Amino acid sequence: MSVLTRPILEINLDHLLDNYRMLAELAKPAVPAAVVKDDAYGLGAEIVAERLYQQAGCRVFFVAHALEGARIAAKVPDAQIYVLQGIGEDSLPCFTETPQLLPVISCPEMLESWKNCAIGDRKAAIQIETGLNRLGFREDELSKLRAADKQLFGLVMSHLACGDEKDHFMNAHQIENFERLKKTYFPELRASLSASDGVFLGKNFHQDMVRLGAAMYGINTAPYRPSQMKNVVTVKAPVLQIARLPKGDFVGYSATYRASSERRIAIVSIGYGDGLPRALSNVGKVLFDCGGKLHEARIIGRVSMDNTICDVTDIPDLKVGDMAYLAADFYTLDDVARDAGTIAYELMSRLGKNTRFDRRYIG
Amino acid sequence: MSVLTRPILEINLDHLLDNYRMLAELAKPAVPAAVVKDDAYGLGAEIVAERLYQQAGCRVFFVAHALEGARIAAKVPDAQIYVLQGIGEDSLPCFTETPQLLPVISCPEMLESWKNCAIGDRKAAIQIETGLNRLGFREDELSKLRAADKQLFGLVMSHLACGDEKDHFMNAHQIENFERLKKTYFPELRASLSASDGVFLGKNFHQDMVRLGAAMYGINTAPYRPSQMKNVVTVKAPVLQIARLPKGDFVGYSATYRASSERRIAIVSIGYGDGLPRALSNVGKVLFDCGGKLHEARIIGRVSMDNTICDVTDIPDLKVGDMAYLAADFYTLDDVARDAGTIAYELMSRLGKNTRFDRRYIG
Repeated sequence: MSVLTRPILEINLDHLLDNYRMLAELAKPAVPAAVVKDDAYGLGAEIVAERLYQQAGCRVFFVAHALEGARIAAKVPDAQIYVLQGIGEDSLPCFTETPQLLPVISCPEMLESWKNCAIGDRKAAIQIETGLNRLGFREDELSKLRAADKQLFGLVMSHLACGDEKDHFMNAHQIENFERLKKTYFPELRASLSASDGVFLGKNFHQDMVRLGAAMYGINTAPYRPSQMKNVVTVKAPVLQIARLPKGDFVGYSATYRASSERRIAIVSIGYGDGLPRALSNVGKVLFDCGGKLHEARIIGRVSMDNTICDVTDIPDLKVGDMAYLAADFYTLDDVARDAGTIAYELMSRLGKNTRFDRRYIG
Repeated sequence: MSVLTRPILEINLDHLLDNYRMLAELAKPAVPAAVVKDDAYGLGAEIVAERLYQQAGCRVFFVAHALEGARIAAKVPDAQIYVLQGIGEDSLPCFTETPQLLPVISCPEMLESWKNCAIGDRKAAIQIETGLNRLGFREDELSKLRAADKQLFGLVMSHLACGDEKDHFMNAHQIENFERLKKTYFPELRASLSASDGVFLGKNFHQDMVRLGAAMYGINTAPYRPSQMKNVVTVKAPVLQIARLPKGDFVGYSATYRASSERRIAIVSIGYGDGLPRALSNVGKVLFDCGGKLHEARIIGRVSMDNTICDVTDIPDLKVGDMAYLAADFYTLDDVARDAGTIAYELMSRLGKNTRFDRRYIG
């Protein structure tokens, strides 16, 4: 028996580390921090953080939730771990038990909570609003901070809204706001404005610290030119069955595809239950590597929970057990996301959560 | 400190069991089987299977992958567990170690594998193609089965393509195919054609066994009339910050929303990293329960990985720490899915995978 049934998720840690090093070099002398929130975009926060710590010397990490920070803390023993969603009643125990966790404080209410809890001797970060209109102190709130409040912080940060569009007016607007607010309220504080996308925007966006996430995971955060990142994620799945599709027959739920001529179809063992977007129904594609030559096969009908059907009429040599590529170096998650009408960030976060994958780390 | 930071996923097991019982009653005297693949659509296969086994007497389960069957086997000691993706090299150890697992055989190649492995004394199921054109023996393949091959099976099954559309021509087409093929090739075998949607189509669709999945989890699989199912999933998340949005300001990534007048916004601690579809950007909504009165707030700007921003101008009493409902009895996953351009099956499968939720079982 040589046929497989489960889909495979390959995560290339060598490429991830190469991407980190490339971005860190580009941002020098800014301190590189690694964003490993959302389980390292689904790729496994513990192993990713450990490698970055041990093999690339990373000593600052960002997570969204305290819980995520607690999960990686033992792997990065003397690193700082900033918690972007800050501190609340539900995360207080995590902060208490894990001295490395530092909350990012985003509004006056959260600052009061932080001041009132007994672990307030750590230096928190303060998030300030510069144009994204998401979490962050607005200027009227900054103006009310007392000198003693400002002493609580070790980092001032903000976040770009349009860093992936090189000439977007928001970039100039946000850096102007950031530098003005920093100078006015936190002239001596270490500053961080940019995530991966900002690294490519030039020196003035680097400030004292850059937060490396998406591009480190292989996503092109500068889509105005070809990607400079190495691909990290490969998704493949076995062909479970090949069948003749008679002319006039329908395929899949709601009969959304009808064969206008006789076709040959392959049923591939991956579906939206594995994180493949259902939005790829009738528009996406899978690829087959037949002796080094790539063949595209169009997805036909609806992607279902466990299976995806594609048209392999033009790939006569294909047989049951062959592997279909859903994402790879030659068809990256950026490409898949474009076909599915979303962004690679969302796709990666979905795929990585699924326990049905045979998950393989390379490197 | 009374403010929370993490989103909450509530799963009402009482409602799930009520749905199962209602569907089982409707399908009598057909045997009810429970579909707990994809980790019970993300809701937790172990706990769901255990409850169905212990409290509702369920003795037949369906999973997609052998691995999923192995995970629940100990909770349902003398139940049959059918494995829809069948058997392969990667699942052979699971089958060997877990005597309850029965493969669903869908093509001649897989039948050969099954015959060649040493555990062939269990009665498998055979999947036959009746119109969906997904996994299943085509008629030319059935006609080549030998009498000895047919002895290997204990169940003949197929699957409806359009069972959620009461008057779709495919339903009549598929039941005609199913009954003809069954009579010709497996006249004595126990038969199963329908999942939840088929239960509502009438007696002839019930056959000997129905496979209860989506409707059991609260999804309306008969959307041509109001749902008869009890809601199982509630998703809520805390408001981390409330802020003034000046006229002319932009919100979120790529600045896709601009305020045409001054607004008041709430930043809610949930994003696509938690499984909330990014497709809800600028079109979805969240609800707030203010003293028993529901208020809708439109999602503005892009849903990001950890946060979602909504317009709460018309909810003046709202404060930091209040909970936003992303899905609930009054705004079900069917409703959310419609707003996001997908189906509740995909949404549920995504949400349930995320470990950042404070996951709470009711019942």
